[in-house]
Amino acid sequence: MGEFDLIDRYFRRPARRAALGVGDDCALLNPTPGMQLAISSDLLLEGRHFLSTVDPHKLGHKALAVNLSDLAACGATPLAFTLALALPQADEAWLEGFSRGLFALADAHDCELIGGDTTRGPLAICITVFGEVPPGQALLRSGARPGDDLYVSGTLGDARLALEVFRGTRSVPQAVFNAARERMERPTPRIALGLALRGVATAAADISDGLAGDLGHILKASGTGACIDTSIAIQLIAARGHPALGTSSFEAEFWLECVLAGGDDYELVFTAPPDARRVVEAASAQAQTPVTRIGRIEAAPGLRLVDGAGQAVTRRFVSFDHFST
Amino acid sequence: MGEFDLIDRYFRRPARRAALGVGDDCALLNPTPGMQLAISSDLLLEGRHFLSTVDPHKLGHKALAVNLSDLAACGATPLAFTLALALPQADEAWLEGFSRGLFALADAHDCELIGGDTTRGPLAICITVFGEVPPGQALLRSGARPGDDLYVSGTLGDARLALEVFRGTRSVPQAVFNAARERMERPTPRIALGLALRGVATAAADISDGLAGDLGHILKASGTGACIDTSIAIQLIAARGHPALGTSSFEAEFWLECVLAGGDDYELVFTAPPDARRVVEAASAQAQTPVTRIGRIEAAPGLRLVDGAGQAVTRRFVSFDHFST
Repeated sequence: MGEFDLIDRYFRRPARRAALGVGDDCALLNPTPGMQLAISSDLLLEGRHFLSTVDPHKLGHKALAVNLSDLAACGATPLAFTLALALPQADEAWLEGFSRGLFALADAHDCELIGGDTTRGPLAICITVFGEVPPGQALLRSGARPGDDLYVSGTLGDARLALEVFRGTRSVPQAVFNAARERMERPTPRIALGLALRGVATAAADISDGLAGDLGHILKASGTGACIDTSIAIQLIAARGHPALGTSSFEAEFWLECVLAGGDDYELVFTAPPDARRVVEAASAQAQTPVTRIGRIEAAPGLRLVDGAGQAVTRRFVSFDHFST
Repeated sequence: MGEFDLIDRYFRRPARRAALGVGDDCALLNPTPGMQLAISSDLLLEGRHFLSTVDPHKLGHKALAVNLSDLAACGATPLAFTLALALPQADEAWLEGFSRGLFALADAHDCELIGGDTTRGPLAICITVFGEVPPGQALLRSGARPGDDLYVSGTLGDARLALEVFRGTRSVPQAVFNAARERMERPTPRIALGLALRGVATAAADISDGLAGDLGHILKASGTGACIDTSIAIQLIAARGHPALGTSSFEAEFWLECVLAGGDDYELVFTAPPDARRVVEAASAQAQTPVTRIGRIEAAPGLRLVDGAGQAVTRRFVSFDHFST
């Protein structure tokens, strides 16, 4: 199977929204008049961002999900994406699974594959995604203000737990592992929540490198600090409350490490003024996405952790950094 | 140096045209009202698309050039691009050279870096480029008609010659090699020609995988065939006429192989009706880019080669295919 047969068989579908889709030198898009275009690009490498043993269907899902998550963080509506793919060989079973996983998520968000590139090489996936947002309504990292409430969506840290089990540093009952692995391999981009938070959240980011690190981007961009209640944060990891875990559990430090510095969560961290709590609740309900208030934005720079009684927790949690770790 | 320091130091510049540039979850672009967006994405891998010994400044140039070449083939005006970069380590000298080469070409085309991704891994570069074109005016592969003239821009095959010298299958005088290597390492995207050909060319493609293959895409999309005069085509490789080559030269088959199936040329192949010859000449002059008429489009499918006397040349030239070669 040659390069162009491969594209035709697995990745070429009739253009819907695009004026011209896969198969020419460029794709052509007609932007909706008056809308801003939101653009994000992510590169995923085997062995770094995913394991070689991953189910290709799940990988197809995840490769697009991590990009859609960036659109969610901006409150943008997905439109289209390009896919640049390096493959060690044209493995039909792999391509079948990968493309099905990719298109299942793409179709769920009406996000169209419009072009890209294929080459032979170590497995690498680069997706660039396009969304749209009314001018001035994109959620940015820079809008947090002292006094704002601090929220996260969904659950955090389960992907990290699964990774630790894969690495062999921890072991958990099979049912706990299966659930955590599902979170690692099939993250849910919070598109509906991002849309519902337009005009409500003052700042937002997606959590890809760990809550502490991604919140840190908001704090830096906004020129503020924040305080997180660790007694609430520790409850965000679903595995900790899994019935199959029984009485065997880990020390609080490990759970907090997973929640605060886990990575691969693809939830949203966002801020909103306290007088918007009902509106945030309504946005959460509308998007059918749970959110948890975990702290507040403060004027003093830096991230502070407190326990349930408001006492400082001194442990530092370091976010994932591709060039420092 | 961490991931975000690296981005700040080498890749973050103030947003110009973009509403929001590098540094948030998404970049934000305001499309020009009424214009179509042209989008292309290419993934370059060390060892496959470039040699590990390449000068990083030239690599920065080439990584963007191959993407701009796709915009040129559509007749689009460059606007912006994203860069996803996997690096084995944060090598400051490499990053300095790469980013300078990248931005020099970007600035020459007023094409703004608006976002991307960095990760650690085997050197890989994925650029997605955005341009704009008035609706209905993009040059497509599908518009060639029987009787149209067939043209290429610039010179073809020198990159392939350089590659063969690198591979050790051929040797040439140093001056010839230097010139050929420059063509391989610093291709010139034909943006000005693409713009000048809007409303003139009936079809166009850029030549990245070899003339025969990329012309083949036009023929397939247009439902036509073509005939190339090899006595003209053989003159397209600059090295063949290089003074330093002297009397030592290669057989015609090798020169034609370089021209017809070389790859890495990043010239344009395009078609236009015979009554537009003067207009094509004017476009070539306006864009300060030489073009050569090398044959014509015919109704019968397939690519035919003839010699200067119109006699069939039967040798087949196979284009580069990442999964067949």
